[in-house]
Amino acid sequence: MELSEEQLERLQRQFQFIREIDREKEIMRQTPLADNSRKEDDAEHAWHMAVMAALLGGYANTDIDLQKTMLMLLTHDLVEIDAGDTYAYDEVGKKTQRAREEKAADRLYALLPEDQGVWLRDLFEEFDTGQTPEALFARALDRIQPTMLNAATGGKGWEERGVRLSQWMGRNTQTEEGSRVLWEYVLSHFVMPFVLSGKLKNE
Amino acid sequence: MELSEEQLERLQRQFQFIREIDREKEIMRQTPLADNSRKEDDAEHAWHMAVMAALLGGYANTDIDLQKTMLMLLTHDLVEIDAGDTYAYDEVGKKTQRAREEKAADRLYALLPEDQGVWLRDLFEEFDTGQTPEALFARALDRIQPTMLNAATGGKGWEERGVRLSQWMGRNTQTEEGSRVLWEYVLSHFVMPFVLSGKLKNE
Repeated sequence: MELSEEQLERLQRQFQFIREIDREKEIMRQTPLADNSRKEDDAEHAWHMAVMAALLGGYANTDIDLQKTMLMLLTHDLVEIDAGDTYAYDEVGKKTQRAREEKAADRLYALLPEDQGVWLRDLFEEFDTGQTPEALFARALDRIQPTMLNAATGGKGWEERGVRLSQWMGRNTQTEEGSRVLWEYVLSHFVMPFVLSGKLKNE
Repeated sequence: MELSEEQLERLQRQFQFIREIDREKEIMRQTPLADNSRKEDDAEHAWHMAVMAALLGGYANTDIDLQKTMLMLLTHDLVEIDAGDTYAYDEVGKKTQRAREEKAADRLYALLPEDQGVWLRDLFEEFDTGQTPEALFARALDRIQPTMLNAATGGKGWEERGVRLSQWMGRNTQTEEGSRVLWEYVLSHFVMPFVLSGKLKNE
């Protein structure tokens, strides 16, 4: 078969984007792997959450479109390719986060054919605004996944950085809106034991 | 809210599996990142392909269920947590691959609640058998993604290991069955230039 010029141009843009997002594998986060051997990167984090969405999606407070939620989780951190990862408790970095990420989205999504650029950009904005059932559930997983990993390492990540329970709570004000069941489980299994052991400081 | 004993047990099994699969981030592949800074791991590979499925799914020869294809791509390598990665051109390793992966699937999927274990196990078997539209397209992406990365590095991965065009072809006998459009594009843009430059040996 012979590809038309239009098909070729569309494919070229799609593959340019696909090659560009390879850099997400080099954006490091502050969360340790479960065996504490190193920190994880954005691509690994996104992969883990997309699988979690498939397994835990039934616990969302409101029915969610799983495909949309998975794609949102797989792509919402792409802006960090330009903007870098902003650590959850970096209060200075968070002030400029929105502007840095908007600029990154402008550049990245323009690489794609327009329809697909708009599609992924809208998903990113929807996640960021956090109002739809999918965004609320995706945001809950975005908090629960690192909490689960921090708990798996025995709270080492929290201890090293002197994280306080009030900070964790501040980060998780919306988690219950995504899933009451997961909120309850995470609080009792991944958080309270480390408050009791002093790895997550309660002051 | 209070979780029932049944809910708690189900959640415990789900989170045990979710923690266990964290190890996929430590299974290294032979494919380099696009900037050739290091090899990629299984979780990064799976993430990349799931995003590719969303962007390129329209090129499948037969309409595919995108959600199913994405989940298949996200999970089909989980067996490598126990079985290890078998390099595409490792003819000795490939002889024992099936048995090693079956044993791994028996252990891993038994961690999950039964319904979800069967769901993911079936997806793995469907990928492995490679007969449905989703499996054919997922298998095509599983060949195209490393080819794209090898091409991005200027064919370094192929050159280092002395890979021959006939080996690449042998690995890609089914790719056209997943997508004629992508097959055509990959062959002309990611393969032939490296045959011409001698990075992919044609003998």
